[in-house]
Amino acid sequence: MNTHQMQRLRESCAKNGPLCVGLDTDPSYLPPEVLSRFATPADAVFAYNSEIINNLGDAAGCCKVQIAYYEAMGLAGLAAYAKTLALLREKNIPIISDVKRGDIADTAKAYARAHFSGDFETDIITVNPYMGFDTLEPFTAWCAESGKGIFVLLRTSNKGMNDLENSALAAGGVLLDKVGAELNRLASLFASQYGADCCSPVGAVVGCTEEENARALRDRYPNVFFLIPGYGAQGGQARIAATLLGKAGGTVNSSRGILCAWKKDSALDAKRSDGALTLVEVAEAAIKAAREAKADLLRAKAEL
Amino acid sequence: MNTHQMQRLRESCAKNGPLCVGLDTDPSYLPPEVLSRFATPADAVFAYNSEIINNLGDAAGCCKVQIAYYEAMGLAGLAAYAKTLALLREKNIPIISDVKRGDIADTAKAYARAHFSGDFETDIITVNPYMGFDTLEPFTAWCAESGKGIFVLLRTSNKGMNDLENSALAAGGVLLDKVGAELNRLASLFASQYGADCCSPVGAVVGCTEEENARALRDRYPNVFFLIPGYGAQGGQARIAATLLGKAGGTVNSSRGILCAWKKDSALDAKRSDGALTLVEVAEAAIKAAREAKADLLRAKAEL
Repeated sequence: MNTHQMQRLRESCAKNGPLCVGLDTDPSYLPPEVLSRFATPADAVFAYNSEIINNLGDAAGCCKVQIAYYEAMGLAGLAAYAKTLALLREKNIPIISDVKRGDIADTAKAYARAHFSGDFETDIITVNPYMGFDTLEPFTAWCAESGKGIFVLLRTSNKGMNDLENSALAAGGVLLDKVGAELNRLASLFASQYGADCCSPVGAVVGCTEEENARALRDRYPNVFFLIPGYGAQGGQARIAATLLGKAGGTVNSSRGILCAWKKDSALDAKRSDGALTLVEVAEAAIKAAREAKADLLRAKAEL
Repeated sequence: MNTHQMQRLRESCAKNGPLCVGLDTDPSYLPPEVLSRFATPADAVFAYNSEIINNLGDAAGCCKVQIAYYEAMGLAGLAAYAKTLALLREKNIPIISDVKRGDIADTAKAYARAHFSGDFETDIITVNPYMGFDTLEPFTAWCAESGKGIFVLLRTSNKGMNDLENSALAAGGVLLDKVGAELNRLASLFASQYGADCCSPVGAVVGCTEEENARALRDRYPNVFFLIPGYGAQGGQARIAATLLGKAGGTVNSSRGILCAWKKDSALDAKRSDGALTLVEVAEAAIKAAREAKADLLRAKAEL
């Protein structure tokens, strides 16, 4: 195998822009008049996802599907999740499944099988490294053998990241530096397999929170592609995101800013207050918001 | 509410012994001649689980269901997972769902809904604290309002625990001490809600690996109930497990040692080599192994 899904994602972002559309589709993100037209919330969620996916065009480099919202709807929700992944695959859109799994030995192997094959097969998953680097091996084995990719949590965008990730170590530096060192080690290993023109199939989740920090992280992990949350609804800024897009690059996620764009779209004021919105109008607002986010990010990148 | 699921689990372990039967039921843990009698691997897994659950009696204090093995079988696997939880509930056996979820804000709320209500409703889940203590709040809210319980990863039993969990901090101590301090803080908070006779609804995963460490951890978190992996197939010892059972107590998980007991049961030698095992025989070997593990643990506890 000469390439892998992370490199495919990187190329898609080079072509269609750095935006990642987050399909964290909670049923409550739809207006009641749209939701009520479907037999189940899971049906409504899949219909909304489909409308977005089918009309995404070149507005984004990829989609990220947050499994928690589908798990919360039980078996019907996970069926909608599987159908969403299948549709993304059919449309040839790179998929990140935000599952943040992490466990040891045979259990981690089971998680890798769960998300790299079968009903929930995806291109790239997010992984939690807390239990140690041996817990990454079952996933990196799929990166080596099947070209799959993973994003390892490096620096998240929530306040609590100071509790553990950012703890100062006796040996110097902070805890997340140890994760980063492992990412660089893996990047070197994979460079010998895939060649230096590819980024590493093992990327990192790096939140969009502080400019100085963003610059330091970008410089320290040059071959690591970043998944960048915290832009938009979480309060991050395009300039910080753009900083993180240097070197190997990255993709900037926006979820609620896109899925809930209909709530703020002034063109929909009248219909919204009349409770007369349609699914097509709601999805059009989402695509419009995605195009605006893409333009915002490309502008910030050009101004750096 | 005057009690919660962790206290219920604690009382069940006081009555039926400290063993937790781990239903990490991979289809490969069944003999081929049994597996082939079912339409799908997921059907075989649910039938095996049912046979164990229906015959468990007082052999164990609870069951732990590891969701990874069910996710690996896709939608059919998760249907088997939901049916397993429903059967455990019907039999009034305390359930730990080993899901190790962890995420921020609304996503963590979605995970809490996913596993504390609906198709996948359980009593207690395992949680990964890596992203920070704010990520525990959506789960502890369910502990306060609905009497659910969580086990937070404190010290796992794999070699890689030294990579992050056991990192020496500039401020002294190791990283997992910070998690422990948060567990003690939560235990105090909940003592004022549930009373000091209850353990905390927020327990800890503490691997069964070193005796000295086990004693220190047991003393440091007196009101925290422990989920103890690493006994049996993972190589831990009854004596160390027994040490961890002091104070608030704990439950000692064995998965493969029970599920795969038929592979080593000398009473089954002839049938095994003839490929003539039945599901009932395989499940009987599992129950026998559970009773032996229970006796082993109770003996070690008495000898301490």
